[in-house]
Amino acid sequence: MNPNMLSLSEAVEAIGARKVTSVELVQACLDRIDERDSGVKAWTQIDRKAVLEEARSRDDEAPVGPLHGVPVGIKDIIDTVHLPTEYGSQIYRGYRPGREAACVSLVRRAGAVILGKTVTTEFAMFRPGPTANPHALDRTPGGSSSGSAAAVADFQVPAAFGTQTAGSIIRPAAFCGVVGYKPSFGTLSLDGVKPLAQTLDTLGFITRTVRDQFVMRSALLGAERNPALFAQTKPRLGFFQTPFWSATAPETRQLLEQTARQLSESGFGVEEVTCPASFGNLNEMHANLMAFETARNYVSEYEEPNRSLLDERSRQAIETGWTVSADDYQTMRVELGQARLQFAELARDFDAIMVPATVGEAPPIESTGDPVFNRMWSLLGVPAVTLPAGRGPNGLPLGVQFVGRYDTDLRLLQVCEDVERWLAGGKG
Amino acid sequence: MNPNMLSLSEAVEAIGARKVTSVELVQACLDRIDERDSGVKAWTQIDRKAVLEEARSRDDEAPVGPLHGVPVGIKDIIDTVHLPTEYGSQIYRGYRPGREAACVSLVRRAGAVILGKTVTTEFAMFRPGPTANPHALDRTPGGSSSGSAAAVADFQVPAAFGTQTAGSIIRPAAFCGVVGYKPSFGTLSLDGVKPLAQTLDTLGFITRTVRDQFVMRSALLGAERNPALFAQTKPRLGFFQTPFWSATAPETRQLLEQTARQLSESGFGVEEVTCPASFGNLNEMHANLMAFETARNYVSEYEEPNRSLLDERSRQAIETGWTVSADDYQTMRVELGQARLQFAELARDFDAIMVPATVGEAPPIESTGDPVFNRMWSLLGVPAVTLPAGRGPNGLPLGVQFVGRYDTDLRLLQVCEDVERWLAGGKG
Repeated sequence: MNPNMLSLSEAVEAIGARKVTSVELVQACLDRIDERDSGVKAWTQIDRKAVLEEARSRDDEAPVGPLHGVPVGIKDIIDTVHLPTEYGSQIYRGYRPGREAACVSLVRRAGAVILGKTVTTEFAMFRPGPTANPHALDRTPGGSSSGSAAAVADFQVPAAFGTQTAGSIIRPAAFCGVVGYKPSFGTLSLDGVKPLAQTLDTLGFITRTVRDQFVMRSALLGAERNPALFAQTKPRLGFFQTPFWSATAPETRQLLEQTARQLSESGFGVEEVTCPASFGNLNEMHANLMAFETARNYVSEYEEPNRSLLDERSRQAIETGWTVSADDYQTMRVELGQARLQFAELARDFDAIMVPATVGEAPPIESTGDPVFNRMWSLLGVPAVTLPAGRGPNGLPLGVQFVGRYDTDLRLLQVCEDVERWLAGGKG
Repeated sequence: MNPNMLSLSEAVEAIGARKVTSVELVQACLDRIDERDSGVKAWTQIDRKAVLEEARSRDDEAPVGPLHGVPVGIKDIIDTVHLPTEYGSQIYRGYRPGREAACVSLVRRAGAVILGKTVTTEFAMFRPGPTANPHALDRTPGGSSSGSAAAVADFQVPAAFGTQTAGSIIRPAAFCGVVGYKPSFGTLSLDGVKPLAQTLDTLGFITRTVRDQFVMRSALLGAERNPALFAQTKPRLGFFQTPFWSATAPETRQLLEQTARQLSESGFGVEEVTCPASFGNLNEMHANLMAFETARNYVSEYEEPNRSLLDERSRQAIETGWTVSADDYQTMRVELGQARLQFAELARDFDAIMVPATVGEAPPIESTGDPVFNRMWSLLGVPAVTLPAGRGPNGLPLGVQFVGRYDTDLRLLQVCEDVERWLAGGKG
């Protein structure tokens, strides 16, 4: 097997056991990129020489942390100094920030090799970048973490950073058939990540297994005794159609209902969750709150001469934000506080609640897809994970999303690992 | 009266009524700085020529926003492009960020003239900058927003940005005898503000009146119909000694008890608040949580060759943070969620709760003072305001702090304006 096919945790183990070197792993990823990236277009910047040099020095030194020698991709909304950071925007063509984002320094400190920068939509908003879905080049990989999801799915890199404000980790991960994890709001520092909406922006990871998500967490936060943190009780699963169930494509409806049934038959015990009628307003609240904050974060980009370099969709997002009043913002913040408490109550008896990840398969490449099944979880700030689970009518990947109560990320990931094992065991 | 003596709202009105020009106001501030700053040392960067040119162009154009023509000071933990941004650190000597912080762009958009950068402690941590307390040059102005508080108190500028992670707005504002406001966590974007601890960092303002705080809010968020938002009911005041009452100096104890009594006699109706015993742990939780996040935000500054340019106190703060485990962090986050709910319950019947702002008067200049009465409010994320209220045994200003429930900032400010009026009316 080519080393680029190893999952992140397999790669860490293989390097630790000296079964593969960092140079071999990185070279295999670069070869895969050379072979595939003219079609997939997941990367904006790779300095091949520097990356191989970094890998070589990892091979020469004693292991320094949980990512020793392993390549990681950095979404280009995140500041790097050694590689340009363009935020998917013409305004920042060739831009070199003066400081490196904390998350980049942290993975370096954990021993990672920064493979390169991955494509983001313009400012993590709506204008798609050039990236294609590796499963069908005429389909979107999703956005805004387009390059990260496509590169991980295409075995070009075992792990990459994503960020989510609406649905920018979960949606692309689901469309590309990989594991996406959006942590509880505020867990991971956004230092050096260009803000979109401060009440929603969340840094997270795209990998190919749930185990890999634990590894990325430990690189950023430190070692966690996760299995010991919780009683090894049977997971308590919920199934929640959300107020937006009617937006699902048939394949999603079928996948979720079938998964709920089969999980239940396999002894997981799945309970249906119903929700307060007010939850139907959460997607609209998310859109307004996001627009309000985005407008105020993008004052300098909206001024000339920058404005004429902005995509029409970005301009419109900013202009919409200026139509939301400060009073409305304040009211939304208070209502959001209440909704967060309501969800905590609703979710109290569950370790993980299964919800749709996307409408259906990845749509054509012109858009990045609809975040209808992501907005409310970003708004509530709760942890969310998508697992690849089956294929749609066109043979494209489908995801199943699991969400949990705020700050119960480890338990959620643990349950997702159980479900992942069960999915691999051949049901579904 | 020299125009630099005008409060922010008076200045806005005077410029609007063409009673004073922006150039006259800015020149008066610059004259005051020339006269006083060799002693007070509040500023790190002022480009006099550029500032006057900006003021001149404000005078030549129609008013564009609520701060038209008025100078504002920017704490040097906040990124500016036209002036160096040094974060109070040797590492960033002469550093020019590539992007301007959102809050700077927003006050510009509101018509403000950026007067200059104000002194911060190193990375808003513990090493004091050169700034002195304008009321006694051998005393600290407090930290970390040292220059902002001193400059506003000394009539060098009518308003300045501060940031608070432990007590960095409220403490210096109280020590300098001005109004400090730390908004509810997350209200104002931290884009371009160097992160210290993402669960705590908050942008706010230092001004000379409460009215001015409304003006600064409106510049960043948009116009607010604040008085109409709430029924004009009598304010419901609480008096809360906090679990740390024994740390107060006699002058603080006396000031708060007397103020509570006199407010009560004046018909405000003040009720004593008692709190769960667990609140005694909040300051320690704050310190550990802050250290954990700081360490992970300061990886690149802690690496050589930067490390040798770090102050010993900053190094120690970072090293302490690495001794806090990820498991402890997760546990603290969950406990914090519970404490926030407990405080919301406790504060439910109050519009504002009076608490100590500081231990006592500003201590000697070697330290920036103790944040013992600030940590828990930063941790809880609730809004806090300090009002100047009397003098201590050495004739130095004392503040009284008012805190409110999360996201009730407008009501809190409104009540503080009532109390400010009452204080000016000659009691206390």
